[in-house]
Amino acid sequence: MKLNPNYAKLNESYLFADIAAKVRAFVREHPQADLISLGIGDVTRPLSPAVICELNAAAHDMAAEETFHGYGPEQGYGFLREAIVRHYAAKGVVLHDDEVFIGDGAKSDLGNMTELFSESSVLLPDPGYPAYYDVNVMAGNRIHFAAGHSRNGFKPMPPSGRRFDIIYICSPGNPTGAVYTREELKAWVDYARETGAVIFFDAAYEAFVHDRSLPTSVFEIEGARECAVEFCSFSKSAGFTGMRCGWTVVPHELAGGALNKMWLRRQTTKFNGASYVVQRAAAAALGEQGQYENRKIIDYYMRNARVIHDALTAAGIRHTGGVDSPYIWMRCPRGMTSWEYFDALLERAAVVGTPGVGFGRRGEGYFRLTAFGNAEKTARAVARLVDVTLAMTNRK
Amino acid sequence: MKLNPNYAKLNESYLFADIAAKVRAFVREHPQADLISLGIGDVTRPLSPAVICELNAAAHDMAAEETFHGYGPEQGYGFLREAIVRHYAAKGVVLHDDEVFIGDGAKSDLGNMTELFSESSVLLPDPGYPAYYDVNVMAGNRIHFAAGHSRNGFKPMPPSGRRFDIIYICSPGNPTGAVYTREELKAWVDYARETGAVIFFDAAYEAFVHDRSLPTSVFEIEGARECAVEFCSFSKSAGFTGMRCGWTVVPHELAGGALNKMWLRRQTTKFNGASYVVQRAAAAALGEQGQYENRKIIDYYMRNARVIHDALTAAGIRHTGGVDSPYIWMRCPRGMTSWEYFDALLERAAVVGTPGVGFGRRGEGYFRLTAFGNAEKTARAVARLVDVTLAMTNRK
Repeated sequence: MKLNPNYAKLNESYLFADIAAKVRAFVREHPQADLISLGIGDVTRPLSPAVICELNAAAHDMAAEETFHGYGPEQGYGFLREAIVRHYAAKGVVLHDDEVFIGDGAKSDLGNMTELFSESSVLLPDPGYPAYYDVNVMAGNRIHFAAGHSRNGFKPMPPSGRRFDIIYICSPGNPTGAVYTREELKAWVDYARETGAVIFFDAAYEAFVHDRSLPTSVFEIEGARECAVEFCSFSKSAGFTGMRCGWTVVPHELAGGALNKMWLRRQTTKFNGASYVVQRAAAAALGEQGQYENRKIIDYYMRNARVIHDALTAAGIRHTGGVDSPYIWMRCPRGMTSWEYFDALLERAAVVGTPGVGFGRRGEGYFRLTAFGNAEKTARAVARLVDVTLAMTNRK
Repeated sequence: MKLNPNYAKLNESYLFADIAAKVRAFVREHPQADLISLGIGDVTRPLSPAVICELNAAAHDMAAEETFHGYGPEQGYGFLREAIVRHYAAKGVVLHDDEVFIGDGAKSDLGNMTELFSESSVLLPDPGYPAYYDVNVMAGNRIHFAAGHSRNGFKPMPPSGRRFDIIYICSPGNPTGAVYTREELKAWVDYARETGAVIFFDAAYEAFVHDRSLPTSVFEIEGARECAVEFCSFSKSAGFTGMRCGWTVVPHELAGGALNKMWLRRQTTKFNGASYVVQRAAAAALGEQGQYENRKIIDYYMRNARVIHDALTAAGIRHTGGVDSPYIWMRCPRGMTSWEYFDALLERAAVVGTPGVGFGRRGEGYFRLTAFGNAEKTARAVARLVDVTLAMTNRK
């Protein structure tokens, strides 16, 4: 057997394992501590009643011969693809239902989409979601980074005089919480069209955008249908991280129609559709009652984000995100590395976050906080974080 | 962008589309006909009560903050991996629970596993499951065929003097229904070890093996832990074709431990676990009550298989399968191609099956029947099939 040599080039990631080990050691030494995590990248609120109701109805279908569902269409049931087309129509984006592919989550599709390309040069945001990097190492692609930093508000813009085959954009961004404006995204779309690149647009956090002037889909930008694929998910908008459902939009205009056909062929050959009961539940999340209920859940998280944002702002601690995003990306006190700050915060405030360097070299000196926790605990944790951080800042 | 050139080498498959078109035309011309399909490759019985009960309980979990489940382990929940370890222990196979990976179905894993290898020569059964061929074209591998025919009972054996990197074996076989004996499988395991090949063992139909002398897992064979990966599924054993859950076993011995680590890395990077509610339902299928109920469902299908097998045997129509397999692979009347027989059977008996040539060049002149239909209709259809087939045979 001949193993794929690219796997040997992957770095082992110990980020979350290291965090867990440090937290365990802290709890062992301080069993009475009121430990609170602001590092949770997962939702914590239960599924909404409308979603649960539909999940039960779908389970009931599976119990009788007349309503049982076996293999479904690999690209997803029509009822869900049509609901997603309506979801886009509500923001003025017109899609054909055969441009929408239902999958088991954006992570799978973001990884698997690399198979449709070969020997590509890719441009990844740094800091960015670590899986972007890993899947391209696995594919043997040439990896370049677009640097995010405080001067560009963690929104890297197109580099002049260079070209890439594939460009990854995540907006609202993980881990930075930065959201591209319409004009900024237009610059990327124009650049991609001029240079013949394809944009992989990760819209997993679109539901957190409240400012109506900000785009929530790359297809709100003119010309995007000729150069972009969009990945989205029910994970954060409807609490589906454990349910597993997402979708990918591959417009017919891409590569003269070839990419849509290739993705259909990939999915019909190496995938067998998302679970019927999960697709039914996902469709309910996009229904009127589901939208109403899930908006309330998102508002709950966004109040947490606002609490963190406001507390950091009042304390003069530099950060991005937290307004149209569940992530807050803060500067560590001057001179501290991400891990030094992590250790100090854990030790002195019993608060856990995520060291920014875990998201790339440019994340060093930064720290990610999230809005997915319990409201009361979040407020308590951020108060302690601010006190400890100001004390460290003033001492220096 | 640079597209993967291998996709252009794929043949479009029109098999099931062509069947559907012919059936539609027949129904249009004969609206009163009692059309019956013996071509169904999907289960038709509803999920068992124990499975439905657990699916409802899991849905209930998702409705409350205290019992809500977000992201699960990418390799699957411990409760399900341990249940699968016990499933193997019952057949005398000892596995570690970190050798078992839960996925969303064998089709996904069979396709995705090719990523761990590069520039491989692969040996596929002909006739065989068409996706084996397609995923290896996509991967750019060199494809060779192991011919199944009546002389080897559609169980090709290792070719002497040749070697391959990857060998696909499906037992019980789709489409042929042929089941390898322990001795035959041992010959493949020995061959793989001698030549440094890895066996991809597709055990999707293992639940249909009733003859206890026949192996239902490649790991019942000595030495297999050093050369085989096994793919299995709840699709046919518990009616999960629409639920989506399967598993893959990657022993630690393979490639000195490298393959298990690579698959873990692949799954943690490009997959986010099967749905929690589906995993709970799958675990119930492996529980005592679930096993009892699902055995009755399999017995239902196996009675259909027996009805087809016995009718063909009594009529002297040559075939394999139908005993320890849900598939029956029959010889078309002498001189007829698969499609000629398909057309004649549809026109004269109003019975639908699957032309063997759809499973590879060696499938020409054969026809696949399945046991997944309704019992009463199956009996009626096979009686008509035998009458019409004998009439065609005698006329010649």
